Amino acid sequence: MCECNHPVVTVQALQRMPYYIQQLRILKEKKVETVSAPKIAELLNLNEVQVRKDFAAVCREKGKPKTGFLVTELLNNMEEFLGYHNVNEAVIIGTGSLARAIIADDSFQNFGLKIVAAFDTSPNQGDTEVCGVKILSSDKISNLCRRMQIHIGIITVPAGQAQIVCDQLVAGGILAIWNFASVHLSVPEHILVQNENLTASLAVLSNYLKKTLQ
Amino acid sequence: MCECNHPVVTVQALQRMPYYIQQLRILKEKKVETVSAPKIAELLNLNEVQVRKDFAAVCREKGKPKTGFLVTELLNNMEEFLGYHNVNEAVIIGTGSLARAIIADDSFQNFGLKIVAAFDTSPNQGDTEVCGVKILSSDKISNLCRRMQIHIGIITVPAGQAQIVCDQLVAGGILAIWNFASVHLSVPEHILVQNENLTASLAVLSNYLKKTLQ
Repeated sequence: MCECNHPVVTVQALQRMPYYIQQLRILKEKKVETVSAPKIAELLNLNEVQVRKDFAAVCREKGKPKTGFLVTELLNNMEEFLGYHNVNEAVIIGTGSLARAIIADDSFQNFGLKIVAAFDTSPNQGDTEVCGVKILSSDKISNLCRRMQIHIGIITVPAGQAQIVCDQLVAGGILAIWNFASVHLSVPEHILVQNENLTASLAVLSNYLKKTLQ
Repeated sequence: MCECNHPVVTVQALQRMPYYIQQLRILKEKKVETVSAPKIAELLNLNEVQVRKDFAAVCREKGKPKTGFLVTELLNNMEEFLGYHNVNEAVIIGTGSLARAIIADDSFQNFGLKIVAAFDTSPNQGDTEVCGVKILSSDKISNLCRRMQIHIGIITVPAGQAQIVCDQLVAGGILAIWNFASVHLSVPEHILVQNENLTASLAVLSNYLKKTLQ
């Protein structure tokens, strides 16, 4: 199971990893050298067995009894497992306030994302840059992605335009799409679409309030 | 199961609802009067049986053979079920680019969210408004939430400050928290935390690319 032969990890486990990484980075900053799975479980209010299992899936060395894991090593293993050490170059489609927030957010860089270009679907707006990233006309999407071998496309355009730019990304050889438009995208099977539907989260919140306040 | 006695609906079903609503709103705009579950399933690339089940959970009237559901009625039932017809007043903590993007996004208003105040954790910045919403000092969080009977708090501050403002929201009687900070929040059991961890999504994307490109 260890030494490069990582077991299959669920999406839920993958989604817990950034929380671990966050905690491990804080511990590393505080010069804490070792940490146990129960300690991390306690800090994150997670199940101890689950944390142990998650650590076992990514780490090369087993945790030692009493002392636990070396913080730096566990952090490295986890970052490597997630592919954060390879810089993932991405393009972003749309230049509205959400796109600006994503480009301006330094924390994504710490997780290996580098946005190399932004595409505007209404090219007459006049701006040439957004937070230091060049704005290009959206008819250049496929060409640029193919030429620069970009693998991630981030879609922040309104729902009505999302499938059009998605098709352009696919034509450009993109492999993964981070979709912030609240619409279902049709893509070939080998392409991963990670939907970030904020209105879906709002649905969960609204429904909870409705039930609670009744 | 129908007529107000809604069956228990899963979080996954809740999260599909905004997609249905989006499609139903488009159909309504196009003056389409009826729609069938299979048609919606096809438009959204979802399983037909699942769509039927989701519709049955929220609708008062059963779909008619051949014609299906009345678009306006289905839309109304769904919006009511999610509590979008009750305006959910919310406060937002943090005034950075992400907060601005959320405040500026009209689509949340269409889903019943109204942000009534923004709180700044570093009150010396000088701005008094962000996209038309008043900025207040964060020491006023509890007081204002309690006085205005606010039920939703949106956290967009850095991870290190999130628990502090979360505690202030809880003290103010908030019932649901929309958490954009990539950190686990400890809250009393009756409070719903909807985590929006974008770095977790990035973890899924990065890991997929790492596996695909190997």
